[in-house]
Amino acid sequence: MQTALECIPCFARQALDAARFVSDDAALHERVLRDVLLMAAEMDLSQSPPVIGQKIHRELRRLTGASDPYARVKRRFNRLALEMLPTCRRRIQDADDPLTMALRLAIAGNVIDLGVGVALDEETARQAMERVLDEPFHGVVDDFRAAVEAADDILYLADNAGEIVFDRLLIEQLPAERVTAVVRGGPVLNDATRDDAEAAGLHELVDVIDNGSDAPGTLLSDCSEPFQRRFAEADLILAKGQGNFETLSDEPANVYFLFKAKCPVIAARVGLPVGTHVALRSPAYHVPAGGDHHAGI
Amino acid sequence: MQTALECIPCFARQALDAARFVSDDAALHERVLRDVLLMAAEMDLSQSPPVIGQKIHRELRRLTGASDPYARVKRRFNRLALEMLPTCRRRIQDADDPLTMALRLAIAGNVIDLGVGVALDEETARQAMERVLDEPFHGVVDDFRAAVEAADDILYLADNAGEIVFDRLLIEQLPAERVTAVVRGGPVLNDATRDDAEAAGLHELVDVIDNGSDAPGTLLSDCSEPFQRRFAEADLILAKGQGNFETLSDEPANVYFLFKAKCPVIAARVGLPVGTHVALRSPAYHVPAGGDHHAGI
Repeated sequence: MQTALECIPCFARQALDAARFVSDDAALHERVLRDVLLMAAEMDLSQSPPVIGQKIHRELRRLTGASDPYARVKRRFNRLALEMLPTCRRRIQDADDPLTMALRLAIAGNVIDLGVGVALDEETARQAMERVLDEPFHGVVDDFRAAVEAADDILYLADNAGEIVFDRLLIEQLPAERVTAVVRGGPVLNDATRDDAEAAGLHELVDVIDNGSDAPGTLLSDCSEPFQRRFAEADLILAKGQGNFETLSDEPANVYFLFKAKCPVIAARVGLPVGTHVALRSPAYHVPAGGDHHAGI
Repeated sequence: MQTALECIPCFARQALDAARFVSDDAALHERVLRDVLLMAAEMDLSQSPPVIGQKIHRELRRLTGASDPYARVKRRFNRLALEMLPTCRRRIQDADDPLTMALRLAIAGNVIDLGVGVALDEETARQAMERVLDEPFHGVVDDFRAAVEAADDILYLADNAGEIVFDRLLIEQLPAERVTAVVRGGPVLNDATRDDAEAAGLHELVDVIDNGSDAPGTLLSDCSEPFQRRFAEADLILAKGQGNFETLSDEPANVYFLFKAKCPVIAARVGLPVGTHVALRSPAYHVPAGGDHHAGI
């Protein structure tokens, strides 16, 4: 999707938040902010928001000399999520419909996003998981189930560290032999990389690959050729988080976007209130005549 | 006061809000926003925030060709405030301490500010006035009273249209012969100009002058020479609104700032929670030994 004008003040705020997160140096904060203003002043708005996110975080890493400034917070949220895993898994086992519960928990985990405005603390994350069923939800789980059953090759595009532990719960409800989990190719913000997939134990369940890119989304043109091929060949993509929605919602691929609508621009784009938990078939994909069907049947 | 880094994303947002307020032309919105990003990227942060506000609104007027894009909304809020005037005046008359009540109402009127993030509607303004005593207040009214009694020459710097009608209620409690009301020298945002002072009937009570500047604050160096002289000669300044605080809080003059702390930067600067109604002696002014005393005594 294109970048909206209201994304631009938000980029500046995000850049400042990020600079303050990774450094105590006020001169560095100012430099990052001014750099981002210049980038934003000349930005091509036909690009998706993660294009700027990628530039901001490259600049931050360059200026701080830290290759992964969010490493510690990513570990912290992985650990927190792992602590919550047994309780969440029990809720899924006890649920009338385990797939629905796992889907809801995986979407709720998308609250662990350090790119949004409000500073995230552990208590907020904990409550978001406990109260998952109180949150507004938009999606047709039976359609999701049918899409999963019909697919031979499913790519699961993870979003953030911490969140990826809850993705594991959803992946446990999917046909593991047909699923490949995908993480970012390099550190950006608190997005999940291979280390986080391993911390979540995903590699014990499914193949884990990375997309070769350090954008906070899935900018296909910036991804590695092997990933681009996998993306083109997959018959179902499960894409977590706003960044993946922003970068893939115009692709004519068979994508289910699973995210919490955290900003007014995204909420307006999907026509739902801010805060809604969304499981949405790609608006750019046309289900073939006859609907989803398992290729093997 | 200097501009904080977090003011900068806010300028971009304000510029976009303002552009959308004054025009339906998306290309103009984008142009204004990009211009402001470039200005902000090079801004001298030792300047106060209204320096950028002035530039943004000059640019808006230039691009739209409208000399006073907020004229209609200013009239609307003047009318609304005038409708509420009799009820408010009765509350002052019935109060145990009319000056306190008038001061509280004048500060509550500062909610009528189209520069802040949340779109202001009439109902919000109405409720802010009705529930004025429920709002947190920081100030020592007896000190304010003593400062007023001690002063021979009081300048009352108004802030916004609509709000200026409630300023009238406070001015009615002051020694009118010693008060001069001051408005902006030209239209900027919904700030009060001479037309608004007249709509509020201030000219029937006190002298009304303008400061010769179109900044959304009181940038002394940008004000007319006659106003600068009046400012230097006055022995008490009552300054409404954040813009006047931002531009005058470092002046060693005898200023009482009366405003609602609407943003985190200002709230932090005065050490109070966002939303607090503030009546604050200038931190840069030193009360002479012996305290305030009426020069005539």
